[in-house]
Amino acid sequence: MLDVRGFLREKRDGRRHRPEEIHALVAGYLGGAIPDYQVSAWLMAAFIHGLDEAETDALTLALIRSGRSFDWIDLGRPSADKHSTGGVGDKISLILAPLVAACGVMVPMVSGRGLGHTGGTLDKLESIPGFRTQLTPEALRAQLASLGVAMVGQGPDLAPADGMLYALRDVTSTVEQESFIVSSIVSKKIAEGASAIVYDVKCGNGAFMKDRGAASRLARRLVAATRAQGRGAAALITDMSQPLGRAVGNALEVRESVEVLNGRGPGDVRALTLELAALMLSLSGAEPAPEAAMGRARRALESGAAWEKFLAMVEAQGGEGRSVQHADGLPRAPVTVEARAPRAGRVAAVDTFGLGELVVAMGGGRSAKEDVIDPRVGMIVRRRLGEGVERGEPLAELHLTAGDEAFVARAVACFRIEDREVAPPELVIEKVG
Amino acid sequence: MLDVRGFLREKRDGRRHRPEEIHALVAGYLGGAIPDYQVSAWLMAAFIHGLDEAETDALTLALIRSGRSFDWIDLGRPSADKHSTGGVGDKISLILAPLVAACGVMVPMVSGRGLGHTGGTLDKLESIPGFRTQLTPEALRAQLASLGVAMVGQGPDLAPADGMLYALRDVTSTVEQESFIVSSIVSKKIAEGASAIVYDVKCGNGAFMKDRGAASRLARRLVAATRAQGRGAAALITDMSQPLGRAVGNALEVRESVEVLNGRGPGDVRALTLELAALMLSLSGAEPAPEAAMGRARRALESGAAWEKFLAMVEAQGGEGRSVQHADGLPRAPVTVEARAPRAGRVAAVDTFGLGELVVAMGGGRSAKEDVIDPRVGMIVRRRLGEGVERGEPLAELHLTAGDEAFVARAVACFRIEDREVAPPELVIEKVG
Repeated sequence: MLDVRGFLREKRDGRRHRPEEIHALVAGYLGGAIPDYQVSAWLMAAFIHGLDEAETDALTLALIRSGRSFDWIDLGRPSADKHSTGGVGDKISLILAPLVAACGVMVPMVSGRGLGHTGGTLDKLESIPGFRTQLTPEALRAQLASLGVAMVGQGPDLAPADGMLYALRDVTSTVEQESFIVSSIVSKKIAEGASAIVYDVKCGNGAFMKDRGAASRLARRLVAATRAQGRGAAALITDMSQPLGRAVGNALEVRESVEVLNGRGPGDVRALTLELAALMLSLSGAEPAPEAAMGRARRALESGAAWEKFLAMVEAQGGEGRSVQHADGLPRAPVTVEARAPRAGRVAAVDTFGLGELVVAMGGGRSAKEDVIDPRVGMIVRRRLGEGVERGEPLAELHLTAGDEAFVARAVACFRIEDREVAPPELVIEKVG
Repeated sequence: MLDVRGFLREKRDGRRHRPEEIHALVAGYLGGAIPDYQVSAWLMAAFIHGLDEAETDALTLALIRSGRSFDWIDLGRPSADKHSTGGVGDKISLILAPLVAACGVMVPMVSGRGLGHTGGTLDKLESIPGFRTQLTPEALRAQLASLGVAMVGQGPDLAPADGMLYALRDVTSTVEQESFIVSSIVSKKIAEGASAIVYDVKCGNGAFMKDRGAASRLARRLVAATRAQGRGAAALITDMSQPLGRAVGNALEVRESVEVLNGRGPGDVRALTLELAALMLSLSGAEPAPEAAMGRARRALESGAAWEKFLAMVEAQGGEGRSVQHADGLPRAPVTVEARAPRAGRVAAVDTFGLGELVVAMGGGRSAKEDVIDPRVGMIVRRRLGEGVERGEPLAELHLTAGDEAFVARAVACFRIEDREVAPPELVIEKVG
């Protein structure tokens, strides 16, 4: 039994906990023996004084052990997963999971829903009519055995203490703490059972990490915490100073993903998907040499194998294959309006956060958990950083349920146009691990 | 309505609250709108980053306003009260309250019970057969009007938010924080309605404040916080490196108080009582000049007026007058054993905390709130700091329910005897305000 008051004094005074104390805290909270008000006092003390790497590792393991852990070793194939810290227009998972599976590496991908200015993979998948994101553990295992890929939501038995702690962090202003973020992300990924995990840490004005230093520190800690649990890990720090690709919004992003899977679509989406896929193939041991891994990923995309895997996954999870096979198969918003450039020049800056918030305001995202999303709503970005534009040419195309001039004005205000030459940003800023 | 999350972020990041935010927190907690787990997160953040003077004043006022405030102005006499931060053998209140009342200044004294190594005035008073410490507000007022003194326990309507916050601090290891301590003490004293308050801040190994610096800072803050609420205030920092007087334990301390009221008893108890009385008389405006105030206090003690006031108060509150008038009137422990010096020399140090804890262990105090006290249990200290002792002479006399060699050994171990000369400590270390 944990001496909770002694434990609280320890962190209050900036001292370190022993791993078994952290385990006892999480177990006591999960079991109801330690009340909210003691845990929230600890969260605040730990927020202020921080947790070191050993404490973070102990917290991560305690969260994992609070629930069910999957293990796919008996399926006899390597496995890998990817986690993104979230951005605007980030539809990479939709292409990446089937692509990596087409290369022979299992992808048991557990995703979340969108909240705030970023979208969520589950919401995107559910814009495909019929697609089911909740599978029983048995159905998940069967699909992984047969197809090698499944994309699902988090079951209630996966790291349940993380959900409890998150709810308490949310109401006590202790969310944005690196050790809490790391243990929360890593515990869920570990419990999902992949043997290698790749992190895509977004950096820029559309990401939670605005600056390079913070993104780099988070990436290093995610990799270290994952390896501490005995899994392979690496991270890319990638640009989020403009939306990824051109589509933002659920059905629009699925359509863009289908394009990339068919050899078309925006170059940045394709390039980043291949980078992440190569890392997953190499970390999982399926193709250790980086160049060979990249070659294998590229072939799976170009041969159509990734697309076929995607289609098979959609149908296995109840989605209508024709909805993604035909250009008009996905739901479309009734109104399309263009946000036009008020002057000629080059796009010097994009308020990525602002564009994400705009899509939420238009109905394509959530500002509160209980909000209902319209999957048809979103935008197509017509001009990217560094590109030129004439006065009156489109900067973005808004897909709306009804025309609204205020939305158009907000979209225009998100683009800064200048006369000077502007170099487009580097997509991959840094590789960690 | 307070934005609790924003409020928590503020203190989490070491920023200052506005007074109205602190009022909203306390009111929200009292009314049930703000839950424990948010308040406890705030307590931890405030513990770590501290509250400045303005924040402490706001918290003090919010605690006062959470309940009933008394006001004795209509009774037409000046009033004063004293608060001690607690020590071992501190029976000053029992003598001081009737003494000051005998000088024409009303003393509406609200006291607490003992917990841990220090005793409590209520417990001491209740060792007088029949003495009632709970008076209705009407009875309290009537007694103040007729006698000018009453010694009672805290009613549930006096600063109730302080009690709620204290309970939460107790289970979240956020008790020992200066601003919390100051606001808790001052709010209750202000609500009791005295127009001048004197603080006796104990300093030494039997006090909560072990070192002079901490005691001095606390004394200054108590005085400042009290003046901020428009009352007169001063503080003495006094020695607690050995028990005050010779008696420790409830009935034994009442007996010693009776001795002092009758012109006998230990010199330190008498001297400190007179110092505090003079301060109360001068601060209340009854006798502004310090020397005149001291003279008036001394006369009230020597004339027997203070003793008569004490007796009248005991009887007014249901106590048996004869129990304090006769040497054998108070309950006595059945067993008395002496703790004898293992060697000759001088008393160089006393483990005052240890002696306090010993009395608790013997049954004369509480280690938990629900413990029942035996009022007969305690000790008489036979040798004080700097006094000489021969081998086998008594250091202390233990009053017990049954003989126990372990208690004797513990008592002996609390005295350090050395060969060198040892100067006795100064009783009043500093005067503040």
